[in-house]
Amino acid sequence: MLTIKRLGIDDAYVLIAGARAKAQEIDVPMCIAITDESGNLIAFERMNGGKVTAITLAIDKSFTAIGIRKGTHLLGDANQPGQPAHGISSALGGRMVAIGGGLPVFAGEEVVGGIGVSSGSPAQDLSVAEAAVQAFAASQGK
Amino acid sequence: MLTIKRLGIDDAYVLIAGARAKAQEIDVPMCIAITDESGNLIAFERMNGGKVTAITLAIDKSFTAIGIRKGTHLLGDANQPGQPAHGISSALGGRMVAIGGGLPVFAGEEVVGGIGVSSGSPAQDLSVAEAAVQAFAASQGK
Amino acid sequence: MLTIKRLGIDDAYVLIAGARAKAQEIDVPMCIAITDESGNLIAFERMNGGKVTAITLAIDKSFTAIGIRKGTHLLGDANQPGQPAHGISSALGGRMVAIGGGLPVFAGEEVVGGIGVSSGSPAQDLSVAEAAVQAFAASQGK
Amino acid sequence: MLTIKRLGIDDAYVLIAGARAKAQEIDVPMCIAITDESGNLIAFERMNGGKVTAITLAIDKSFTAIGIRKGTHLLGDANQPGQPAHGISSALGGRMVAIGGGLPVFAGEEVVGGIGVSSGSPAQDLSVAEAAVQAFAASQGK
Repeated sequence: MLTIKRLGIDDAYVLIAGARAKAQEIDVPMCIAITDESGNLIAFERMNGGKVTAITLAIDKSFTAIGIRKGTHLLGDANQPGQPAHGISSALGGRMVAIGGGLPVFAGEEVVGGIGVSSGSPAQDLSVAEAAVQAFAASQGK
Repeated sequence: MLTIKRLGIDDAYVLIAGARAKAQEIDVPMCIAITDESGNLIAFERMNGGKVTAITLAIDKSFTAIGIRKGTHLLGDANQPGQPAHGISSALGGRMVAIGGGLPVFAGEEVVGGIGVSSGSPAQDLSVAEAAVQAFAASQGK
Repeated sequence: MLTIKRLGIDDAYVLIAGARAKAQEIDVPMCIAITDESGNLIAFERMNGGKVTAITLAIDKSFTAIGIRKGTHLLGDANQPGQPAHGISSALGGRMVAIGGGLPVFAGEEVVGGIGVSSGSPAQDLSVAEAAVQAFAASQGK
Repeated sequence: MLTIKRLGIDDAYVLIAGARAKAQEIDVPMCIAITDESGNLIAFERMNGGKVTAITLAIDKSFTAIGIRKGTHLLGDANQPGQPAHGISSALGGRMVAIGGGLPVFAGEEVVGGIGVSSGSPAQDLSVAEAAVQAFAASQGK
């Protein structure tokens, strides 16, 4: 029998608050999705002005990140022509997102959930996801 | 050119808070989805214990409610055997949800968004959606 | 080798104009879709106020009508419990619409296209589709 | 509460007429799709000779353009090998079209809808979409 650690809804809102604060700082309204370690959605926020096409992208970035247990920007590297995983972005009906902005959330060594951010450039989306993960880590340190 | 009114993210959280309070009162953890008047997701919360299968149901109930501009339980009546819309629940790839728990949100005569609730019985889901709409109406009255 | 008769874009606009006029008369803004005899979209209009969920329904009603070569309300009868085609509304990923509002368009004995109407009640949708077919027939009589 | 501007059906036909005129000038029959600012279809025309495979491409180019708030040819640049958004064309079940021919339609600073054109080369599709947007701008100037 397995025992699984998983983000709760309060954790999800800590992540969303951390993401929102960074998005406001860089002035890019974002779509922010939090999934659990199984890839199922826990919480979502589309800030006023977040892009319609970014809704699914944010959710799927978080799903991808918990699946690969690393940032989606790293899958982006592996998805490039010449790399052995080239074309993985088409897998799972296109749900594997090989673009920065998705990060797993860890508790110790374990992936307990993920965050996906979309509406800005891949670098902006990643910076917002990183800020969220840092805010979560800080909240755990208390 | 048309001019449209739409829920903002603050409105969405008023709705979610209203739904959560009622869900806690009846002790059924729910999935709660808020869409805008065009059916695009604004905010989502899966309370701890909310059902995994209810995630998409909640989102699609809200989508259906903004589309039909009435509660999804009323589409349920029209979807029954012998009724002229029997089978509509299969339309749009199954996104038309003919089960209680989805309600449009009005500002005056206009649909400005929707709420979809899922995890309980259809009657419980509807009661939580109704509580959310009442909380929103009360917030607008101020 | 086969020779196929097919609605052209001018025919499609005759059908749309006929539908729009009836929709205005009964004061229900509609989504109106015209497909060719192969089920591929030729023209589409969402009148101001037409429902978002009716976009795909209108297209799929027209697709269904050219496929079954009769009105979608007749598929509705066949889709009822106890009938041998019960459940057909789930076929083709839900694209088979067993609700009134889709009609084939004939030139003589041949189906040359279809019309699908959605946003009102099934009876209203059908009346608008019928008005469109009549307007098309009148235009051919000239 | 947010207030949104959106193309109406009359605006959509101005765009279609502008696109059709340019398509006739360059002698390439096109599929032309107009969506609102939320990505939902308002109007569609397949000119006689327009390609069957271009129907969905036109609709999805318009959807993509309202989402990214710029031309789909610019997403094409970002989708190229070595670029950080490489592979984005597979996202959303393939609805993100990273090929020229989709443009947002602006009213001032605001995206109020989109146009997608398909059947020719990407450059031809883009030139037709541009002509449509110019025709719309001219109609607004009156």
